[in-house]
Amino acid sequence: MAATPGPLDLLGITGPVELPDQAARSAAQERLDSLAKPPGALGRLEELAVWLAGVQGRCPTRPLERVRVVVFAGDHGIVEAGVSAYPSEVTALMVRTFLAGGAAVNALAQTAGASVRVVDIAVDDDLAGVPPDVVRHKVRRGSGRIDVEDALSVEEAEAAFRAGVAIADEEIDGGADLLVPGDMGIGNTTPSSTLVALLTGTEVVKVVGRGTGLDDEGWMRKAAAVRDAARRGRPRLGDMLDLLAAVGGADLAAMTGFLLRSASRRTPVVLDGLVVGAAALVAQRLSYRATRWFVAGHRSAEPAHTAALSRLGLTPLVEHEMRLGEGTGALLAVPQLRAAAEVLSSMATLDEVMAGGRP
Amino acid sequence: MAATPGPLDLLGITGPVELPDQAARSAAQERLDSLAKPPGALGRLEELAVWLAGVQGRCPTRPLERVRVVVFAGDHGIVEAGVSAYPSEVTALMVRTFLAGGAAVNALAQTAGASVRVVDIAVDDDLAGVPPDVVRHKVRRGSGRIDVEDALSVEEAEAAFRAGVAIADEEIDGGADLLVPGDMGIGNTTPSSTLVALLTGTEVVKVVGRGTGLDDEGWMRKAAAVRDAARRGRPRLGDMLDLLAAVGGADLAAMTGFLLRSASRRTPVVLDGLVVGAAALVAQRLSYRATRWFVAGHRSAEPAHTAALSRLGLTPLVEHEMRLGEGTGALLAVPQLRAAAEVLSSMATLDEVMAGGRP
Repeated sequence: MAATPGPLDLLGITGPVELPDQAARSAAQERLDSLAKPPGALGRLEELAVWLAGVQGRCPTRPLERVRVVVFAGDHGIVEAGVSAYPSEVTALMVRTFLAGGAAVNALAQTAGASVRVVDIAVDDDLAGVPPDVVRHKVRRGSGRIDVEDALSVEEAEAAFRAGVAIADEEIDGGADLLVPGDMGIGNTTPSSTLVALLTGTEVVKVVGRGTGLDDEGWMRKAAAVRDAARRGRPRLGDMLDLLAAVGGADLAAMTGFLLRSASRRTPVVLDGLVVGAAALVAQRLSYRATRWFVAGHRSAEPAHTAALSRLGLTPLVEHEMRLGEGTGALLAVPQLRAAAEVLSSMATLDEVMAGGRP
Repeated sequence: MAATPGPLDLLGITGPVELPDQAARSAAQERLDSLAKPPGALGRLEELAVWLAGVQGRCPTRPLERVRVVVFAGDHGIVEAGVSAYPSEVTALMVRTFLAGGAAVNALAQTAGASVRVVDIAVDDDLAGVPPDVVRHKVRRGSGRIDVEDALSVEEAEAAFRAGVAIADEEIDGGADLLVPGDMGIGNTTPSSTLVALLTGTEVVKVVGRGTGLDDEGWMRKAAAVRDAARRGRPRLGDMLDLLAAVGGADLAAMTGFLLRSASRRTPVVLDGLVVGAAALVAQRLSYRATRWFVAGHRSAEPAHTAALSRLGLTPLVEHEMRLGEGTGALLAVPQLRAAAEVLSSMATLDEVMAGGRP
């Protein structure tokens, strides 16, 4: 009889996650303290500048020239349990809307100076006619109904994880200097809330929100679904890939691989809302250092997101009760990173000012 | 014997303040509800879009093409009481730094797509060699030491108020479609905190903060100064111009005129921190509608600012514990307004998506 294989070494796939550059962080702090302003007067913006210097490994920082949103699209069988205000068909329609430039993520990317890529990981539609690059990483049509069955086989979870790693490589090799993962998938807050409940030890009723706009009965159906899924997932907390297979989904597995690979390749990431936050929690379990490469763009209106942020140890840059996903909340924070970089690179020092005001 | 003149009619100078355009607001709300997203899913960003449509009087909104920062510079005699970590000489040096482009406001304006103007209202320096436009509106060198004397004569307060009105006119006639008043002046949080204490009925010890970085003894000196100034100012709460003369300063009077004139001329304003917030409180007393033309850019680390925001009824867009002034906090929020405008103008409707995803 063959030996049971152990858990797959996911960090063996992504490569180890190192810490950001401490020397660059110290140089940034020293420079901030020398600038023409009272020490610390720019508050959180100074923390952002130090973070950016650390993840870029240089001070002053480089301008952010290629900010890339990657929207991970996938459907979820749990929609059959009545957990969403919209039907699954909307996922494919929104993928086409992203490609046509008409979605919120396109508008906010325009403002933030970012470009948008959408990848079909598990949309329940063959997306006929879309560019081949969109569907190249597809794992399956829809993930399973997690209250009664696994979202994926372990092989599919691994394939999705590897797809996320490959997508991160494509973006980083393409010159991305800031990555913004986003999500699109009717029903995706249900597996995400389940993962958050399990990984933070939070009661189900405290993490379940209204998603895209559930009424009270819908909320009760969703809470029951998360309860049943959490019961199925709890025994499988020992192996993150198995957990993603049990109660996650192909999109969530891909995002986890994407996040870990970005961290491993020293590329900064702005996290979006609940769905990306759930994947970040899984990534944190695999490597606690991964969060050092992330900033939290915003706090979603979904209660599970607050639980996730607390466990991630990240404080969001924007708190606007947004609950759309797609990467929209993260994009609203991107100009703050640009501002932090500009402060480091273009401000005069106090010594220069005292010498006559001309830098 | 001549009759004692009554209070000057400040709204007679600025013109009356009307309400933003309700039809444009309704059209924006209707459009937001029709877009390719669940109703309300963009949270606060949707409120901003409605506000922008109202103040512009049209939906979709115009892009913000000429965002102008106006930094009001002035010194304060109260610095002699030891209320600041920096000497008054820094004010003039910083004016030169703004002109040279080396200050934080210049860096943040660059990121926000704004341009910066600095006006000397009451800097205690002749600013030899600066462009004439900078000093054209100067009222006097420094405002008085408000714990023991009036900041200004009533005539000077009126001149400063009229200067602010004139500056708003210059900017609006020059095509500004969004105004960002900022402040520069060592010691200016002391009169500002005094105004906030008086206009919100808040205890002195609850409004006094550490400004640019006071130690404990400095804080106690500042608290004593605000206490004494508030005692001098309280009997003069019946006439806002007299109050500004008593415990404000020429920069604060100019900002008040600037804010009211902007509102009167239907031009939106992003408020910055405590100093601009104190002027906004005075403006609100003169016309309660004025605040409808303002958004709060950020919440400063100064406790008086929170008291001011509460009375203004405004919720800040950014909370980053900044405490620099200059307009920096407001500038960090400007990209959110651009994002709100872009959402209104470029997103597809849900009907378009349902018809095939191509807007």
